[in-house]
Amino acid sequence: MAERLLLDMDGVMADIYQQAINFEFEESGKLIALEDVVGKDEIVAFPNAKRHVRQKGFFRTAPVMQGAQKVVRELDEAYELFIVSAAMEFPNSLEEKYYWLEEHFPFISWRNVILCGSKVPVSGDILIDDHYKNLDPFQNRSLLFTQPHNVAEDRGHERVNNWEEIARLLL
Amino acid sequence: MAERLLLDMDGVMADIYQQAINFEFEESGKLIALEDVVGKDEIVAFPNAKRHVRQKGFFRTAPVMQGAQKVVRELDEAYELFIVSAAMEFPNSLEEKYYWLEEHFPFISWRNVILCGSKVPVSGDILIDDHYKNLDPFQNRSLLFTQPHNVAEDRGHERVNNWEEIARLLL
Repeated sequence: MAERLLLDMDGVMADIYQQAINFEFEESGKLIALEDVVGKDEIVAFPNAKRHVRQKGFFRTAPVMQGAQKVVRELDEAYELFIVSAAMEFPNSLEEKYYWLEEHFPFISWRNVILCGSKVPVSGDILIDDHYKNLDPFQNRSLLFTQPHNVAEDRGHERVNNWEEIARLLL
Repeated sequence: MAERLLLDMDGVMADIYQQAINFEFEESGKLIALEDVVGKDEIVAFPNAKRHVRQKGFFRTAPVMQGAQKVVRELDEAYELFIVSAAMEFPNSLEEKYYWLEEHFPFISWRNVILCGSKVPVSGDILIDDHYKNLDPFQNRSLLFTQPHNVAEDRGHERVNNWEEIARLLL
């Protein structure tokens, strides 16, 4: 039986930093560079992100992470793939995430999507995520997807810097 | 450590049959009796339910199952409680379910809510659900909440007929 692979959305499939940069630029004309937000969480790194993530369209129009579509399609064939997104903090994101997946990853069935608060009760063989709070309690193989907020630390997870590296490791 | 209790929404916390009866009556003036839908799934038992469940408000205004509020509050203190609802088939239900929980069960944190397609990857010690498709693959203790669609069969799960019986078994 195929191994069960759990895949995070924000910061792994969806480029949430770029979206926060886009929203900030659209609102204030201020262009924030990725170098300026290293080590900071998405929500606190940008002055208005706390409001932007609750704004209509923030999750629905987020850019797809470079290289994700091709590799996720191949992973979906090789693994029992589940999308597991901690979306419950932002109820506005729930429907937006559903339609975002439908648009950019139409081969993923709704049966394989999990929107949750804590990811602790969701079990699998492999988890790809950008947050230590999700990876640290995970029992099995854990891959840390590099994002500005996690570069400063190393807590022993396998680090992957982009989708090409995930493909090399898992396909 | 407290046991992890997984709790279904539709047909367990929310009275979906009553809501389908309400929607049908409001639309056509036809009053369907519960006795007429025994053995049938909620969606097929009612002539227009397939449309009604996609209508705005169907999940948001569903009546709370009798006795649920008091017992769920006590379970939430005694167990590590997670709400696990197969909501993904109806994307319109995602936000409605969030706000329905917030209104009727405000003591449940968003951290403890899981909206999914398949429940298979969600692990726990006890599952209370009204559908065999969720209970049959569950590895641990499984409680079947009686609903018209499940009365005709017995697949070896512990049957509970109402929230008072759940309280007697688990509290």
